[in-house]
This record gives sequence, C-alpha cells and structure tokens, in this order.
Amino acid sequence: MCGIIGVYNNPEAATLAYMGLYAQQHRGQEGAGVISSDGTKLHRHMGQGLVSDVFSDSTIFESLPGHSSIGHVRYSTTGDSDPRNVGPLTFNVGDEYVSIAHNGNLVSLDQTRKDLQADGALFQTSTDTEIIIHLLAREKGNSIDKRLESALKKVQGAFSLLMITPNEVIAARDPHGIRPFCIGKLENTYILASETCALDLLGAEYVRDVNPGELIVINDDGMHSRQISPPTKSKHCIFEYIYFSRPDSQIFGNNVDKMRRKFGKVLSDEQPAKTADMVISVPDSSNTCALGYSQSSGIKHEIGLIRNHYVGRTFIFPTQFLRDLSVRLKFNTVKGVIENREVVVIDDSIVRGTTLKKLVKLLRSSGAKKVHVRISSPPVKHPCFYGMDFPTTEELVAGQHNVEEITEIIDADSLGYLSLDGTLESTHLEKDNFCTACFSGDYPIALKGDNGKAVFEG
Amino acid sequence: MCGIIGVYNNPEAATLAYMGLYAQQHRGQEGAGVISSDGTKLHRHMGQGLVSDVFSDSTIFESLPGHSSIGHVRYSTTGDSDPRNVGPLTFNVGDEYVSIAHNGNLVSLDQTRKDLQADGALFQTSTDTEIIIHLLAREKGNSIDKRLESALKKVQGAFSLLMITPNEVIAARDPHGIRPFCIGKLENTYILASETCALDLLGAEYVRDVNPGELIVINDDGMHSRQISPPTKSKHCIFEYIYFSRPDSQIFGNNVDKMRRKFGKVLSDEQPAKTADMVISVPDSSNTCALGYSQSSGIKHEIGLIRNHYVGRTFIFPTQFLRDLSVRLKFNTVKGVIENREVVVIDDSIVRGTTLKKLVKLLRSSGAKKVHVRISSPPVKHPCFYGMDFPTTEELVAGQHNVEEITEIIDADSLGYLSLDGTLESTHLEKDNFCTACFSGDYPIALKGDNGKAVFEG
Amino acid sequence: MCGIIGVYNNPEAATLAYMGLYAQQHRGQEGAGVISSDGTKLHRHMGQGLVSDVFSDSTIFESLPGHSSIGHVRYSTTGDSDPRNVGPLTFNVGDEYVSIAHNGNLVSLDQTRKDLQADGALFQTSTDTEIIIHLLAREKGNSIDKRLESALKKVQGAFSLLMITPNEVIAARDPHGIRPFCIGKLENTYILASETCALDLLGAEYVRDVNPGELIVINDDGMHSRQISPPTKSKHCIFEYIYFSRPDSQIFGNNVDKMRRKFGKVLSDEQPAKTADMVISVPDSSNTCALGYSQSSGIKHEIGLIRNHYVGRTFIFPTQFLRDLSVRLKFNTVKGVIENREVVVIDDSIVRGTTLKKLVKLLRSSGAKKVHVRISSPPVKHPCFYGMDFPTTEELVAGQHNVEEITEIIDADSLGYLSLDGTLESTHLEKDNFCTACFSGDYPIALKGDNGKAVFEG
Amino acid sequence: MCGIIGVYNNPEAATLAYMGLYAQQHRGQEGAGVISSDGTKLHRHMGQGLVSDVFSDSTIFESLPGHSSIGHVRYSTTGDSDPRNVGPLTFNVGDEYVSIAHNGNLVSLDQTRKDLQADGALFQTSTDTEIIIHLLAREKGNSIDKRLESALKKVQGAFSLLMITPNEVIAARDPHGIRPFCIGKLENTYILASETCALDLLGAEYVRDVNPGELIVINDDGMHSRQISPPTKSKHCIFEYIYFSRPDSQIFGNNVDKMRRKFGKVLSDEQPAKTADMVISVPDSSNTCALGYSQSSGIKHEIGLIRNHYVGRTFIFPTQFLRDLSVRLKFNTVKGVIENREVVVIDDSIVRGTTLKKLVKLLRSSGAKKVHVRISSPPVKHPCFYGMDFPTTEELVAGQHNVEEITEIIDADSLGYLSLDGTLESTHLEKDNFCTACFSGDYPIALKGDNGKAVFEG
Repeated sequence: MCGIIGVYNNPEAATLAYMGLYAQQHRGQEGAGVISSDGTKLHRHMGQGLVSDVFSDSTIFESLPGHSSIGHVRYSTTGDSDPRNVGPLTFNVGDEYVSIAHNGNLVSLDQTRKDLQADGALFQTSTDTEIIIHLLAREKGNSIDKRLESALKKVQGAFSLLMITPNEVIAARDPHGIRPFCIGKLENTYILASETCALDLLGAEYVRDVNPGELIVINDDGMHSRQISPPTKSKHCIFEYIYFSRPDSQIFGNNVDKMRRKFGKVLSDEQPAKTADMVISVPDSSNTCALGYSQSSGIKHEIGLIRNHYVGRTFIFPTQFLRDLSVRLKFNTVKGVIENREVVVIDDSIVRGTTLKKLVKLLRSSGAKKVHVRISSPPVKHPCFYGMDFPTTEELVAGQHNVEEITEIIDADSLGYLSLDGTLESTHLEKDNFCTACFSGDYPIALKGDNGKAVFEG
Repeated sequence: MCGIIGVYNNPEAATLAYMGLYAQQHRGQEGAGVISSDGTKLHRHMGQGLVSDVFSDSTIFESLPGHSSIGHVRYSTTGDSDPRNVGPLTFNVGDEYVSIAHNGNLVSLDQTRKDLQADGALFQTSTDTEIIIHLLAREKGNSIDKRLESALKKVQGAFSLLMITPNEVIAARDPHGIRPFCIGKLENTYILASETCALDLLGAEYVRDVNPGELIVINDDGMHSRQISPPTKSKHCIFEYIYFSRPDSQIFGNNVDKMRRKFGKVLSDEQPAKTADMVISVPDSSNTCALGYSQSSGIKHEIGLIRNHYVGRTFIFPTQFLRDLSVRLKFNTVKGVIENREVVVIDDSIVRGTTLKKLVKLLRSSGAKKVHVRISSPPVKHPCFYGMDFPTTEELVAGQHNVEEITEIIDADSLGYLSLDGTLESTHLEKDNFCTACFSGDYPIALKGDNGKAVFEG
Repeated sequence: MCGIIGVYNNPEAATLAYMGLYAQQHRGQEGAGVISSDGTKLHRHMGQGLVSDVFSDSTIFESLPGHSSIGHVRYSTTGDSDPRNVGPLTFNVGDEYVSIAHNGNLVSLDQTRKDLQADGALFQTSTDTEIIIHLLAREKGNSIDKRLESALKKVQGAFSLLMITPNEVIAARDPHGIRPFCIGKLENTYILASETCALDLLGAEYVRDVNPGELIVINDDGMHSRQISPPTKSKHCIFEYIYFSRPDSQIFGNNVDKMRRKFGKVLSDEQPAKTADMVISVPDSSNTCALGYSQSSGIKHEIGLIRNHYVGRTFIFPTQFLRDLSVRLKFNTVKGVIENREVVVIDDSIVRGTTLKKLVKLLRSSGAKKVHVRISSPPVKHPCFYGMDFPTTEELVAGQHNVEEITEIIDADSLGYLSLDGTLESTHLEKDNFCTACFSGDYPIALKGDNGKAVFEG
Repeated sequence: MCGIIGVYNNPEAATLAYMGLYAQQHRGQEGAGVISSDGTKLHRHMGQGLVSDVFSDSTIFESLPGHSSIGHVRYSTTGDSDPRNVGPLTFNVGDEYVSIAHNGNLVSLDQTRKDLQADGALFQTSTDTEIIIHLLAREKGNSIDKRLESALKKVQGAFSLLMITPNEVIAARDPHGIRPFCIGKLENTYILASETCALDLLGAEYVRDVNPGELIVINDDGMHSRQISPPTKSKHCIFEYIYFSRPDSQIFGNNVDKMRRKFGKVLSDEQPAKTADMVISVPDSSNTCALGYSQSSGIKHEIGLIRNHYVGRTFIFPTQFLRDLSVRLKFNTVKGVIENREVVVIDDSIVRGTTLKKLVKLLRSSGAKKVHVRISSPPVKHPCFYGMDFPTTEELVAGQHNVEEITEIIDADSLGYLSLDGTLESTHLEKDNFCTACFSGDYPIALKGDNGKAVFEG
C-alpha cells in the first residue's frame, strides 16, 4: 500500500507535501519521497525509511523549490526493498520530466510488460507504476494528460494516482474507486490526498473525492475534470474502513471512526460475551471498535494492553529464547487490570494468526481467567490483488481453517467474527458498492496471469 | 531523566539490556548505550537517538560479549546534547575499567566539583554522574564497592545507579528512594531496572525494590546487600505516578495504572463537569485517568484526539503558517466525535501551557461547543532538582499565574486541577512518603548553590 | 573520460576488476563500479568517489560473486554529478540483465535520442551510453551480441566498450580506434582494459589490442572475434600519449613513457632555453618529458616543485586571501633549488592557463630569476567531442590568444610549444593515424548538432 | 608521529590551521583535528582519517569561530585506533578549557601514570599527552603557562607541543629539540608549525625555530619567551632529514632537499655501482637523493618506478594470489626503461625489508639485468622511543641480519648503505647534535621501564 499527496499553487509546496506524508505515514513506512516543480524543472528528494528519516534536515526543503509538488509513502511488501522502487518515480518523456505517485495495484500486466519489452522498453523498476509511463511514452498525443488518458485505458486494477510535470498536477482514479482519493482547498492552493487526515493537518477544506474514472488536470487556468471511463459500479475497499485508513479520516463518503464504532456495536450484537468482565482493544487500530462494543454490550471498557510506540523494525533474534521475548517489545499487559478477569479482546482482523496467538498467551500469563477474542471483520480467506498486503491463501489462517480450528490455534476461550452482512450493513452505502474479495473471493476485476500473489505493488 | 538496566549471569546479557532499554525508552530518548563485561574487559556501544537508532544492526551484539551488562537511556534536556554525556560513562580507575549508569540528579555539587578541580581532577563530561567517579577514584579502599560507598556518602540528591566492573554489577539508591529501582530474577539471572515493565518484557519475576540507602553487589558469589545510609523517610517522586512511569509498571509498591485510575476518579469528584457530553484524553499518558474520570462521573468516554506515533523530532519551520500547521503533526481530532459536543479533556499536568493551548484551539476548530480541561495533578509551580525536566519558575505557567488566569491563557471554558491532598490520598502510602516539591516548593533535600535551575542531569 | 576493465573466467573476477580500476584511477575519479555475473544473475556495487571510497570494505566482494565481471571509473565533467550516471549502467533487456561500461564519447546523437523518445523510450540517465542500450533493445536479433552489433552501426564517435550478460563478456571498439583498448591473459582468464597498466597490475600477459571496428564475444567456448565495420583509417587520440594515459602503459602499439621522452627531446630542439640553469617538471605528468628535455639539451634536471598527493577536491573558499592560499595546497616549491636560478619548467599542455599562471607566480615568489615555460604539445585550440574533457573554444586560452599573448597572460619570460609536426613525428605511426582535432580543428568524424561542447560523456 | 600547527590573531584562524595540516599530512594520516578559540570558549572538530575526510564540508569552519587555533594530524601506529586518541585533546582544567597538540613521544612514564592513578586521576585516553595535562591540573600555579612549565619539568622525552586556552596559544619544545618546530609570521598573525612547508603554504615568513627547552606564550600582549630548562646538547632526529620531513621544508637550520641531495652524493662515493646503466628512485621520498647520486656518479637518472597516488589503505586479501597482486597496487615499473638494463635503485631506508624485497622482484620481472640497491642511511637496528614508528629489534631486518644477509633476503645483486659518518658529515651541524639511536643504539635520554617498544605515542 501507499499514500499520496499533491499540492498546486503554494510557495511552500514541498513542505506541505512532506506534512501530508506525515499524516499518511500509516499507509507506507518503507520509503518516502517528494517531487517539486519550479515551473521549469522537477526537483526530488526521496529515500528508504520513515518520513522523519528521509526528511531529516530542514535544509532539504531548500532543494525542493517551486509552487507545486507530489509526494509518496510506500509500504514494505515481500522484501523487494530495491531503493529504485521508492516513489515518486521520475522519467524523461521526450524533452519533459514527469513524475508519478500511485496508490493501488494494477492487475494482469504480465502480457503488457512482455509486449513492451519486446518493443524495446527498458524497465528501471519492478513496479506496476512504471508500466503506465511506458504506455504513456508510446502514445502519440500532444499533451501529457491525453497520453496518460490513453495509457490508463490499457490497464486494469486499482489506482489513485498523481502525476506532476513542470506546469501541472494531474490526478486520476480507477473506474471502481477502489482506493480513497480526495480533493481539498487551502485558499487558492489545491491539495489532493489519499485520506482527508492529510487535508486536516494542512488546514485545508475538504471539497470532494476524486470520482471513480475521473481525470483531473490542475494548472494555471484552474482545475479541469473529465470522465475517462464510462460509469460503472463503485467497488471501494471495505478493508480501508476496517483497518487501513486513519480513524480521523473521511473516506468513501463517511467517517472511518463512525464506521468502526458501528462495527463494534454490530459485533457485540452478533458475537456477545455475556460473562466477560471487561472489553479491551489491541491498540491502536481497534480502540474505537472496542468502545462501540463496550457501549452496545454494557461491558466495561478497560486499557489492558499497552503498545510500545518506540518499536520500529526489530531484529530476527538468533535464539528462540530471545525471539519469544521480542514479542513483548511491542505489547505489554497491565497486570492489575487483567488478573483474574474474563476478558473480551477486540482486534480488527486475523491474517496469519501469529500475533493474536501471542497476545492470547500474554494475556493468560498475566492472569486472565478467560480470553474471548472478537474480530470486527469476517475471516480473511483470499489474497488481495488491488493493493492490500495479504499473503497467499496458504498463509492466511482462515484460508485453511474454520472458526473452530482457529479458536484452537490461537488458544482462545471463544472466537467470534463479524459477519459479512453485518460488516456491509454497518456502512452507509449499498452492499455491492464494496469490494469484499478478501472475504468472499469475489474479485470485481478479472485476473489473468495473476496466480494467487500480487507481483507488483504501488 | 533516564532509565537504567543491569543484567548479571546470562549469556545474552547485552541483548537483554537492549530489550530492557526498549521497554524504558519513554524514560529517555536522547541517547542509549550498553556496556557488557566478558569477565576481563568491558565492551561498549552507545550513541545519540532512540534505542532503535543506536542498535540498528544485530551484529552490534557480537561486539558486546559476556555474561553481565548495564544499559542507559538518556532524556534530552536543556540542549546540552554533547555526545560525551551519553551514558553509561566509562572510566579507567587505576588499572580497572568501570562503567556507570545513573537515573536522578545530584544536588549542591558546585563546591564538590570546584574542590575536585582544585585537586587536579579533569572532567570529561558536564554530568553529575562523573563527580561520583572522581570521588570514588580518590578513595583509598581496596574494593570498588567500598570506594563507591565512601563516594556516595559525599553526595546528595536522587540516584538510582548501576555500576559494572569486569567481575560484578553494583547497584545503589539514594536514602530517600526518590527514583524507582527494582530487582528481578529470570532463573539464575539477576535483572535490575528503573521500572518493572523491563522485567515483564524479559520474562523476569519481580523480587523486590532496591531499598532506599541500600548498596547491592552482585558477583559470582551471589547478591550481597548492605545499608549504607541510616533509615530515613522515603520521598518518592509523585510525578512518576502522575506522568513519567509506564502504566504497566509497578513502582513504589503499587501499579501505576491503578494510581492513575484513582487520580481520575478523585478528579471527577473534585472537579466535576456535569453538563459535558463526553470525556476524552490527551493520548497516551492520560488514557487510564480519563477512563477513571468517565467511570466515576458516568460521562461517556470517547476517543476524540488521535496521536501520530510516527512523529519524532520535528523542525522549527521558517514561517508562522508552517509552524501553526506543525502542531497538527502530533495530534488530530476525530471531527465526527467532537462536533457540537461539550467535551471534558483530561491531561496529566500543565507545564508551560503551550501544548494545551493549541489542543483547545484544535478542539474548538473541530466544532467542540465547550472545552473543559481537567488535570490529574496539582499546578506545577516549582522546578525539580531531582531529575524531572521542568523549566524555571518563570517559565512554568502555574509559577506565574493562578487557575483563573491559566483558564484564560489556554482559552478553556473551565479548568480544574486535582488537589494536592486528593493526589496524595489516592496513593497507598503515607502522604509524607512523597516528594511534592514541584507543587508545594517543599524540597526534602536542602539545596546549596542551586538557584532555580538544575545544572547537571543524569 | 573513463577507464574500463573486464574479466572472464576467474573465481576472483570482481576483486580483479577492482584492482584493474585502481590501476586506471587516473582515467576517472568521479565514480566507480563493478558488476559481476554468477552465471545466472548480475550483481553490482558502485558509488561516487574514488575506487578506495567506493570499495571501502573487503566484505563488498562477498556481494559480487561469480567468474566474470566488468568495471568502470568515471571522470568528473561539467558538474552533472547525478549518481545515476555512474557506471556500469545496468538494464533489463527483455528477461535478461545486461550491463555496459563505456570509454569515449558518441557524437551527433541529438536526432537519435529524439527519435527514440518519440518512439516511447524512457531515459534513465543523461549518458550517451544509454542510447546504445535503447537501440539494442529495439533490435530484433536472437542474441545480445547481434543486437549490439546492429545498435553500434547506428552510432558514431569514440567507444571502447564492455558489456556483460550472465553468460558472456562482449567488447567492441569504434572503427577509428580513438580510445585505447587492450586484451590480456592470466592463465585461462581473459582480461580486457583501457590501458596495459591494468594488465601489469594483475600479472596478466598483454596479448593484443582490440582492433578498431572489432567486436569480441568471450564465453565458455572461448574468445570469438568479428569485424563489424569495414577497414578505415585509425584516428588514435594523440592526447592519450601527451597527457592522459599512464607512463607505464603501452597504447596504440608503443610505450607512453617512450613517447613522452621523445616529446621532451624534440621540444628541446624546437624550443631551446640556452641560458637556463635547470629543467624542472610540473609533477607527475611531465616528469618523463622533463628528463628527455634535460638529456637532449644538457641542462641539469632538478626537482623544484613538490606535489601534495593528499589533496583531493578542495573547497571554494569565501575570501580571496584564502583562495590565493589554496593554490599552494597542491604545489610547493623547493626554495633552495629555485632561488636565484633561471628555470625551464615543462608542462604537458595549457588548457585554460590558470594553473600555469599561478605556478609561474609561485616560482617567482621563490626567487626564480627567469621562468621559461615549455609545453610538450601544440596549443589546444578546439574542444574534443570524443571524450577528452576540454572546455569550449572561448575558455581555451589558445582558442582566444596567440603564443605571445599567452606568454604575457601567464607572465612567463618565454613560452615555447612543441609543434604539431614535431609531436606527430615523435610517434612511430603515420601522422594521419592520429586525431589532432584539439590542435588543428580537423575532426575525423563529422559533427551534426554538436555545437562546441560535448553534451554527453562516457 | 604527528604534525602540529598553531595560529594566533587571524580572523580565519581555523581555516589556516586546516591548510597547515594539509601541508603536513605526511606527518600523520590516522586522524586530524582543529580547535579554535573565540576568546571565551574553545570549539573543536576532529575525526579519523585524512584531513580531506575530516574536513569534508566547508560549513565546518562556521563551527570553528575565533582568532586563534591549533591543529593536529596523527599517525597510525600499532592498531590502537581508539577515536578518543585523536588530537588535539581537550580538557576542563578548573573552570577553563585547554586543548593540547603534541608531536613526539614521552618516555619512562609507567611510574608517573601509576602514581597519578593512585592519586585518583581518571584517564580518558592511552596517550602520553594526557599525562602532561594531569600533571598540569595538579600544579598549584596561578596561570596555565606556569603550571605547564612545572608539569613539563616532570616528564622526559621528545615533545614539540602547542596548547590553546581561550586567550592564548602556548608552545614548548623539549630540551634536546628532537622534533622540528618553527615560528612564522603572516603580517600580524603568528603561525607555529612542525615544518616550514606549512608556513610556505600560508604565505607566512619564517622567523626562527622554537628553541630546545623554550616555552613561548602568545597572547594579546604579543609573544613572550622563556627558557624552562638549562642549556643542553641538541639531539635532533636525523631521520627527519632522511625520510620523514617534506623535501621543501627547512628544519634544524637547513633545507631537507639539500640534505637529501648531499646524502645521494656521498652515497655515490661510498657505494658506487660503476657498471650500472641508470639510477632510479623509489618515489617520492628518494627522488632528490637519486638525483644527487646520478649527478655525482654520472650515471643517468631515469624514472623506472611509478607510484599510484590514489592508493590509500588497502585490504588484507584472503588469498596469496590476491596478496601478491596487491603489491603492484602501489608501484608499477616502466618496462621500456628497465628491460635489459643494470639498475641502481635508491631508497631512503630499510625497516622490515618486505617492500624492498617485493620491489626487487618487480624490477626483475620487468627484465632488469641487475638490481643494485643503495640506501641513503645506515642500517636501522634499534627501535625509536621518541616518536618514529619503528618496530622492535626483532622485526627490524638490520636488527637481526648483516648487510650480506640482507642482500640475500631482498635478493639484490648488491646492497650498499650510507655510513653513519657519511650521514652525519653530510649535515651542517656537529655530529653529536643528532640523535642516532636507531642506528647506533645510543639513546640520548635514559629509558626506565620502556622495554623495546614505545607504549604511548603522540
């Protein structure tokens, strides 16, 4: 996954992009980059690591002059940590430099890539994003946005993307609107971002979402929009509500926080735990949901797990003894709260099941009498090809086991998932406006040549 | 402030110290270091920044062999970020290397330092810790622990300290027990730490606290204790309960979490806010306290402020526009929760008042109808000379203003502090077992030559 | 300019390439890189700076496994220090990785580049080398060497180039043989290098030069050669003899050292300085030439200028006082030798004239009675488009001034250049076997779109 | 060994010190540092590596304000590359900071160090320099220079030292004047340096040497000198003339270059090689000497060995094959010059004999008919305790073998050393004004507790 930000018409364009990346750091921690335009040339600064690692010195902004910018944070995936994959990617298209930042995954690109290579295309990266640029470079249009439009018609999948040239910022979103993408204004400055929390940080007013299938060009004549694909059903990623987006963002037309509280309430109805003494959350992603569960069920909400926010990447330790300890680097229990109590612990989802198994063990070792696990989403059984970093069906615990078996695997006293219906009914939209492929296996965009694992990532 | 950790008799001594520092990272983020002993020589690794910055590579542990270790995290204070001040400090005393890690501040050292310098002592650092070593080096004892004992009798103030030599780990605590200091065991391994959360992380069992005035030597013959100062009144730092220690630690004989919940309950009794729609906390330090306030008052607990945990040190931005934005880098509001509501916001203390002023403004801009600020401690009016990093009376907002004035300064609709009596009665100990100097101005250890600002820091 | 090295069939292939770059460091100090092949994949290590900076740690060679390798050192030119221009450049051509290292400049590429871009080619670098790869990628041949052959037929200029694929090392040289390029053997290992000093260092035996217009493929079946362009006149760069190559190399069929001694002898005949007390050289490039001048003229050879070999890049100092001093960072005079003497100082060439002007001033301030400057090459009046880093005609002092004026500019008592005839007659080859464009303006390869400044560089 | 520089009364004091270190880089390549004084405080910048590595950025000088400075380059010795040993060392003596830079070795300090430690002194480094500071700190004088005087009276050995305090620069030299030390002026600025080549670079006029046994204080009242030890015999290090100093320096009252030429002439008389075709030098230290030998003997001087000046520290390669090659990284022969010739090769000294052995082998492999080795100094048989980095007698080839044996070890056709008498008579001073301990074993300063290996180094 990734987060993106674009700024047009502001003397502090690069600094605003940097701040917008900070607000969206949760969308990608592998690398960060900002490209600015001074009207003639593009300038870039990027690197591996967190925004604060990459922008470690305020003098960096002196090397990023100009009134427009785009930025990108990238999520660590399968280990392909080639620094060349860190975005935004920059290319020389004809005489002009363009740079592109992309959130979402394109699909079924194997043949497209092969065709391009057979035609002499030299690839710099292993990203799907670069394919868009090669297609664009081969279009014979008279403007970058026209060429981008033609290129995008040749690809499928999820994309919320931003492109910058010396004179314009261009935005485009896939026809299904899979990933979030919003537009804001701060006086005369345009701000585009994955999530509204970036607009909030910049003090910008939310204007509207980029529409599915829309292409927007912002230049000195203002903002120009056109629909580049015919109207189709929205297929928003339900997992953005469940886990990925920040609770203070508004995406797909509603507050993430509000959705999560609702998930908690419905979960409490569907999966009660009447004998429990308290509800605790796995911080921080499940905090709001636990509040909802507590308010609906009347079971007391407590803080029983403490997360150590200083923990970044940790080492793979050489002995089992040390590896066991390293679990606790991230979470500790508040013994006084847990001891001799029957506890409901709320988490947003179960992927491999390993973390939850360790948490249950930790809670038991702190004296919990019983541990009831409640999950605010259905079982994740299928991989995602549109940007969410799930492993293969073989590695997904719910891809291989039923609820009873998972209860045993994680050693819980009981385990309850929110139903798919319950999940979808909690939202404000029609059920079929969401992509639920990871739960249902029903992929809204057909896959060719993709076999159970997303190859590229953006 | 600082956090310390000691390990004796474990083949992974350095790695355990590193993990113990991770658990105590909240006690100091300026620098970190670990010293190990292989029985003959000491080995060290230290640097500026977070534990994860300093120990960025697992091969570092290969350079820290041996079965015993001490570690230290240091808190950033007045700007004296001289890398030589990062501990543990290491010295050549005669033929032998010793290293020392210290939490707390010594006081009234001006004359001692002058006397030592007049006698030819060359200082490497500006820390008070080094004075202990110079005193020790001038003692004519036949063992390091005897010489340390004599040295400690010549200094006053707060100290929980650990010393390592090739063959032993030595611990000592000041007669008033101002800072926390605990002992644990993990099978045959001794662990000593500032807080029990470090024992928890290492899977060690809590044995007891190091007693005020106690000196402990751990070597191959086991653990040997002696009292090096006569029995006196404990003067534990009440601020460790209010803010500094981790909620999952047990210090001074009780759970920090339990104390904070109690503070919240008493605060709700003393400073009600009957018309409020909800209670929110300034995350994460006030979370438990807000729960207590909510449970006692019956006012609903909500999550209205989101903290961005990725934010480290931020730049001083060149324009006011950017400086205003940078406030929101750290906190954002959940608009849907706040809008049109009357809010009680709980914070643990007010020092300068600047952050709280910005938070109230942020809440108002998110549509809060009223903002009632409740503080789970009395007004901080006096500097701390025993280790807490408070500024001078002139810079403390409560040192210059009464509650009414502060309410106006931070632009709250109402402001209520927990009373000193309420604070102390919430604890399980006699009232006069705590140092309350920052609230009352009543300093338990007389100060000579210290004029309103702690000079040294450890 | 650049230096290149290739190794085939040696278990220490990467280390040998590294050593070969060390021997050729004088050909390029901006960056260095080595690519190795393990038979399946390519591995690379490269960076900006000297070979010793880039290969700072012997563990680097563990990341460069395999039995074949190529290496590249790159010369700093106009300031385009984009790290992406550091070679060898690596590309994904279809499914296969290829890497290329190139010495020399291609010319008249503006239209080729435009055509490629119009056809959708995306450029990664601003090097001419990359154009070869784009042309290659567009060829429909069944083997890399065939596609390279077709690509090279579409470009003009100077190239001694090495390409590596997982299974082979390919070498090619332009039809005029402008830059040096030699083949050696070390038992069963093939070594290819810009200069024979690299073969010497590796203990390899010199076999022969790569022929102008020849393409060589080395794989497990041995070395295969074919002529890819019809026989034409050689146009070796005479400046390689005058200045660029190392004196202990043998290039274009003769020893550099021997040529330089001859230049000195002829210079002494053409430009005597009968009243002089001694001959000194500007170390180290003119040492041999000064010996020749001394031996032919009978004037005593002395060491009057000392070069500080520790001086790397120096700063641009903020004041004129410091800038004046900085000249002496590089050279100092031996006063006792110079004082009250009439001195002949030998240098290889005059480009801008600034250094020589400062040296004359330095010699005078050390007490030289008279300073006679003798140059072992004709006046450099024209830029080089084939790889030598000369500035524009406007910046070349001999492009704007006659000998009399230059004498005055550098403040010499007399100035004498070696004639073009004298230069060419000193060699062992026909006069028209050399490119003399920088002296004569007679460019052997027609230039289109190149206007007085080489744009690309390899 | 080390090189030192001091500057008083110049707005560019730190930059001048940096340049003075550049000129003296040959005296120490392990580390470099500059301390400046702004009149109130000292500022420092130092690090490991070459001057150009440590001062890699011109903004460094902004952190070194003030009108006075001292600087230090340090030579790599036995492997004790503790960064804390890099000078100038800085100490807090009472309220005042002082910093010290020292060239030369103190001797017989074991007892002094033990006494100081017994008295409570804490050592920061393993340098002898620090002992001076501890002695100084224990003196009860009313000024730093008085306390330094008393301290220096308690130590023995070689020292040319510079000390800086906020208000003054102090210089002192041992009673025997073992290491060089000179004073220059640049208008109103005082410059003090190990060698005059530093004065030359700064455009300063040579005034005089610091006298043996002299202490100089430079402050706003000017330069004040006093003799702090009674007149005694000078014992200048003859090896500074033979090898260590730069040829363009003037030390001990004469030009180094002139001395070396004289050594070459006398060597040609004492050790002729009548059948030889040419004289070559091992560059660069023996260049002048080879000129002298050639001029005196009439045998032609040629350039037969080329040194690669880009070679810094090289790796210890894992295989013998690579280790053999690595010899040639530093030197290559000019085959055309050497082949079929009978060669005299001049070197300044033989220490272990390993390099010369490899050079003879290299010359033979390039076709030399005969190789006559001539050395411009007597056999080095004894270690130096006064600063020169020689190994123990066991490792010195002449400490274990006679000339005949060494001839065989290095595989020369003949070997001739300059006699001790010839060496001393070449100078302009009385023979007994030089320390010749490394040749004769006659140590001018008695050694106690030093057993065949210098322990400390400055």
